[in-house]
Amino acid sequence: MSRPLILVCNDDGIHAPGIRALVKAVEHLGDLVVVAPDSPQSGMGHAITIGEPLRINQKEGLFEGHKAFETTGTPVDCVKLAVDKILHRKPDLLVSGINHGSNSSISVIYSGTMSAAVEGAIEGIPSVGFSLCDFAYDADFTLAGKIASHIAAKILEHKLPYGTLLNVNIPKIAESNYRGLKVCRQASAKWSENFDERIDPHGKKYYWMTGEFQVLENATDTDEWALASGYASVVPVQFDMTAHHAIPLLNTWKLDETGQ
Amino acid sequence: MSRPLILVCNDDGIHAPGIRALVKAVEHLGDLVVVAPDSPQSGMGHAITIGEPLRINQKEGLFEGHKAFETTGTPVDCVKLAVDKILHRKPDLLVSGINHGSNSSISVIYSGTMSAAVEGAIEGIPSVGFSLCDFAYDADFTLAGKIASHIAAKILEHKLPYGTLLNVNIPKIAESNYRGLKVCRQASAKWSENFDERIDPHGKKYYWMTGEFQVLENATDTDEWALASGYASVVPVQFDMTAHHAIPLLNTWKLDETGQ
Repeated sequence: MSRPLILVCNDDGIHAPGIRALVKAVEHLGDLVVVAPDSPQSGMGHAITIGEPLRINQKEGLFEGHKAFETTGTPVDCVKLAVDKILHRKPDLLVSGINHGSNSSISVIYSGTMSAAVEGAIEGIPSVGFSLCDFAYDADFTLAGKIASHIAAKILEHKLPYGTLLNVNIPKIAESNYRGLKVCRQASAKWSENFDERIDPHGKKYYWMTGEFQVLENATDTDEWALASGYASVVPVQFDMTAHHAIPLLNTWKLDETGQ
Repeated sequence: MSRPLILVCNDDGIHAPGIRALVKAVEHLGDLVVVAPDSPQSGMGHAITIGEPLRINQKEGLFEGHKAFETTGTPVDCVKLAVDKILHRKPDLLVSGINHGSNSSISVIYSGTMSAAVEGAIEGIPSVGFSLCDFAYDADFTLAGKIASHIAAKILEHKLPYGTLLNVNIPKIAESNYRGLKVCRQASAKWSENFDERIDPHGKKYYWMTGEFQVLENATDTDEWALASGYASVVPVQFDMTAHHAIPLLNTWKLDETGQ
């Protein structure tokens, strides 16, 4: 049997330490191909590039023993280009990250790291995104790498049902204080914006986005609780965004009774 | 009681005919403020602008009788700027669109129109995105405008539960063939990419994203079925992306038994 084919993506760009840590974490599990943006793409959500052409450049020697390609596109573009233009068969696993910074709870929706994993899942590839809750460029990925290795092996063993991927967040914590993995749900949370208003040298206003993260609940089955309690969080994620529970409610509105 | 405050957004840009049709459709329902990108932002997904500053320019006379602002940001940035910097209270309704082109089924996840509505819902604003299944710049928004007017009034009357917003798609159809509104779920579908490979004048390859939309099921309770059958589709959407049904499955993996 051939070795598993593993696609490695991220949103911090192909030169980020986090993707290097991820390659080291999973390279014993199969044949790796790295396809990642040529520059940081944090906060790109599920953006795709429609109005501009895309380029792919093979990077020799960047990841010893592995093929690597940088693209001028978003994380989602990278997955689409990998599937259609770079890989010769559907990969057995897509790993995205390791992100420099948390992608827990509502951040899943803003995250380029997770959007690459979501796109992989749409393509029918078992997919997972890993994020370390430490934004530092020189963050310590030792624990995160061990967790990535363990979970990647588990996905190769069990696969994932179509429509489901994993969002794994690792706390910034000393390894001696780490309590293990917790399967949980996305906490109810939001970013509360507070734009920093400034005046440019020409007298015109401009704004920097800043914000404060607010957790809106304190249940013990959420990713935020797990991370705050010394666990790494594993949230199964789906791209069916239907609020199924709201369909009966909407039907009580009798939307169609007034004609239009 | 004061009139409802209605925030109007889109992703095709403040000069698109679709947002003009939307303003006309809902202006009798309350006080409108338009906040939209200064240029087209299709396919931006839930992207936000972190690494660059943002600007806001008030546009006098663009929408007669209504305040309007263009921003240099994404659709999500527009909502965040509106809530934090432009509006003096939380709006009673956010309407996004009318998009030039479908945002049914999986397109919800790539859509800037829908990401503005999702962001509104995260902020606790009753929110809805409208899309006409016609990409033409000079598309006929007559039917779509009537539907937008009707649904916006219904949302103001009933509100929406926190965490739920609406994705409304209108078929490209003669009004005489229109069969009404159908509450439904997101169909299982995907875009199958087929990048168009070209050579630039310097001999280097580049790629244009093209793709084919594939519906992966033929059930009769989906938005794709509704649209193909002459209905406008109304899908309740949620931003909790947890695959709740997969939590028991993951717990059978006994992820934590091997330590890391």
